[in-house]
Amino acid sequence: MRYELYYWPGIQGRGEYVRLALEEAGADYSDVAREGGGTGAMMKMMEVHGTPPFAPPFLKAGKLVIGQTANILLYLGGRHGLAPKTEGPKLWVHQLQLTITDLVLEVHDTHHPLGPSMYYEDQRAAAKKRTEDFWKQRVPKYLGYFEKRLEASGGTFVAGRRMTYVDLSLFQIVEGLRYAFPKRMKAFEGEIPGLVGLRDRVATRPRINAYLESDRRIAFNEDGIFRHYKELD
Amino acid sequence: MRYELYYWPGIQGRGEYVRLALEEAGADYSDVAREGGGTGAMMKMMEVHGTPPFAPPFLKAGKLVIGQTANILLYLGGRHGLAPKTEGPKLWVHQLQLTITDLVLEVHDTHHPLGPSMYYEDQRAAAKKRTEDFWKQRVPKYLGYFEKRLEASGGTFVAGRRMTYVDLSLFQIVEGLRYAFPKRMKAFEGEIPGLVGLRDRVATRPRINAYLESDRRIAFNEDGIFRHYKELD
Repeated sequence: MRYELYYWPGIQGRGEYVRLALEEAGADYSDVAREGGGTGAMMKMMEVHGTPPFAPPFLKAGKLVIGQTANILLYLGGRHGLAPKTEGPKLWVHQLQLTITDLVLEVHDTHHPLGPSMYYEDQRAAAKKRTEDFWKQRVPKYLGYFEKRLEASGGTFVAGRRMTYVDLSLFQIVEGLRYAFPKRMKAFEGEIPGLVGLRDRVATRPRINAYLESDRRIAFNEDGIFRHYKELD
Repeated sequence: MRYELYYWPGIQGRGEYVRLALEEAGADYSDVAREGGGTGAMMKMMEVHGTPPFAPPFLKAGKLVIGQTANILLYLGGRHGLAPKTEGPKLWVHQLQLTITDLVLEVHDTHHPLGPSMYYEDQRAAAKKRTEDFWKQRVPKYLGYFEKRLEASGGTFVAGRRMTYVDLSLFQIVEGLRYAFPKRMKAFEGEIPGLVGLRDRVATRPRINAYLESDRRIAFNEDGIFRHYKELD
């Protein structure tokens, strides 16, 4: 089965967590809006399908159309060896992913604290305050949590001896924070040696490495979730 | 099996979506922090357990400890007839719940746009701006989406002919918005007749009705997610 991934063509955004899983799985997929379909094909799917998602990304898998990043990973995980199949461990991995979902939303709030509809330039002062709080309180809390989980599971992968989609997502979190806040992240990385090591282990996996070197990996930019604004770093 | 729900004892918050599901299911559960255990018992569970959640609520179900509201509902849904068991419909219901999760976070951001660590009183001006955007752009988008899904599924419940945990959560959303923003919500409700009807259908179900009348239902207050601040309404 060839999967169809639908996401905004110009950004990594939330679609990237799905792309990383599909790439690591060696799954057959098309990134529809980037491969000829454009955003028109995506918007059409959101209107006509029986289970239309609230927002991209969503994945067409045969007759299923699955929305919400963590939900897509829940579906893919069991099928491609990226998550345990037994109930307890499966729910645990999903729980960790949902915590990453919360973190990603808070990352977005650093540059859009007054809402997603206004331009960044019109909320810069509020963004500075939110970013201060994010780095003082939230980054240590979230990344400290994942660092501890990684330690507790033996240090190689966050949910046990085998890699899961959560490890791929944590790679993306470290990469994104390095891109958006290079100075702050450099100062902080000493607190999370385990996660930095995990980032390296994920980056050098053959399929992920090949993906990162390809033009399928979109560069970070200021339309995505992780944005680099000097004044916030 | 007697479930143990762990959540902050003084608020509805995110725990309420779980409480509503447990109550509708007629499940045997204790609300630990409210029933003698206090928050101490809750904090202890977060430190010592093998799969410690990032934050409350979490549910102890036998040997499992399950965190993240939507994840708890995913677990409870299939067990108590509050969600379909087949994969596609099950993922669809979970997807809808994850969209509610996003909405709940945006509700919280209306009074805490500069971050969860600062007091509301110290971010009142930003809260006003965020709230304007929330009601102008986000409420119509989210509630319009659920109104359409409800229409498409026949008008009785949002994901088909049978009630699911998503319907219970939508009840809570309507109740919460009415509490936090009575004027704005009154002006808006004409746009969502289906959801208002759904709210009434849920409220009058025998077990939910009994729960709402009991002292197990905590009153809305200004420590929860839905807060009433006159200046934001």
